[in-house]
Amino acid sequence: MSTAAPRRAGRPKRSVLDRELIVRTAFDVLKRTGPDDFTMAALAEELGVKTPALYHHVGNKSAVLSSMRELITDGIDASGFGRLPWPEATSVWARSYRTAFAAHPHAIALLATTPLTGADPTLAMYETVTQGFLAEGWPEDSVVSAIVSLDNFVLGSALDAVAPADIFEAGDFAPQVPGFTKALAARAGRLQAPDLAAYAQAVADESFELGLQALISGLQHSLARLRGQRDDALPPAGTT
Amino acid sequence: MSTAAPRRAGRPKRSVLDRELIVRTAFDVLKRTGPDDFTMAALAEELGVKTPALYHHVGNKSAVLSSMRELITDGIDASGFGRLPWPEATSVWARSYRTAFAAHPHAIALLATTPLTGADPTLAMYETVTQGFLAEGWPEDSVVSAIVSLDNFVLGSALDAVAPADIFEAGDFAPQVPGFTKALAARAGRLQAPDLAAYAQAVADESFELGLQALISGLQHSLARLRGQRDDALPPAGTT
Repeated sequence: MSTAAPRRAGRPKRSVLDRELIVRTAFDVLKRTGPDDFTMAALAEELGVKTPALYHHVGNKSAVLSSMRELITDGIDASGFGRLPWPEATSVWARSYRTAFAAHPHAIALLATTPLTGADPTLAMYETVTQGFLAEGWPEDSVVSAIVSLDNFVLGSALDAVAPADIFEAGDFAPQVPGFTKALAARAGRLQAPDLAAYAQAVADESFELGLQALISGLQHSLARLRGQRDDALPPAGTT
Repeated sequence: MSTAAPRRAGRPKRSVLDRELIVRTAFDVLKRTGPDDFTMAALAEELGVKTPALYHHVGNKSAVLSSMRELITDGIDASGFGRLPWPEATSVWARSYRTAFAAHPHAIALLATTPLTGADPTLAMYETVTQGFLAEGWPEDSVVSAIVSLDNFVLGSALDAVAPADIFEAGDFAPQVPGFTKALAARAGRLQAPDLAAYAQAVADESFELGLQALISGLQHSLARLRGQRDDALPPAGTT
């Protein structure tokens, strides 16, 4: 950071553009290489530059991952916290979060298991969400676990958002799983769609919305229970 | 399938062993190559055999993916459905499902977006789960979406289960995100753990259990609402 600041001040426009190209290319490379072979050398090769030139522009692999995370974070809308009721703010945040990651499904596994260090806009987003949860009454020591439970649902749903329409196709085995086969047909009958891609999106959206509303209302009950426990643990008013 | 049956009947033991080695190797190869470069050629190279020899044993890439899915499905316990109350059966299933996928995090993105066709034990598992949801009163055309909402949470949680303990480390940026930083410290103070690995597991387990219980209780409310809507849509008893 201390070396990057003066350099960026010297030629801001060029650096910003280069960085953007590098980050966008990084998503393509990650898709091809997988998390383990995703290296600065592979990224440099794809960009047609030497690896040291790449280090000059973006620092290191951690910095590239942070920039990828920042680009995805750009699409996440946490602005409802402090403005809308908690369930609505959380819904807006979770929907935009799912859409942002569904655009980069190959990055989900890697980013979900890589420290956020250096991805300052992402950390700022978590600060906003934390403040929203605290304002709703979440105990300070349970806020992060509650947020992560939503993170987990959102990231799994982002993968499901890019699953093909025929993911549950049983083929020759269909007669052996009659209940599942009938349930799939019943859903298809209700969710009419003009083509397979639209159908895939409709079923993914339905599962996401059903789960999101269930998770949010369930968390509201969990919060009420958590607060009840703490009230029980306190001495009754007037006894001290 | 029609060609595989007689061959396997001729030398069942040898084929079973070969298949197991191939499938276990496939997980290693997928970890290294990522989903796009995960090919039969890459798998054959890792096994030190020619690609046609591999096709002889396992059919094709779809069959390899199905076998990988079957190996993971072996660890999923759907036996609570029809035996335990629905919330408990669902909890047992979801916990074992998360553990089974957390052992193979690199396979999550690919398997979550690949058709189940041919993975008969996995389809049979979904049949058991479907029957359990139907017995609880889930409308046939909503069963699959309810199950997938849990799938999504479980797969996202399986990724979180392998995340490092310092995933939310803000570094120099910590003073800019004071609420988030204090919430992390408060959780760390409550969840004492002997080392970082144990702490990572404790926080992942807490997020998973909090979300799982919230999702299950929320789905019970969603089910009650869904059934209420259907009852409203029917003519009142005695009017026909």
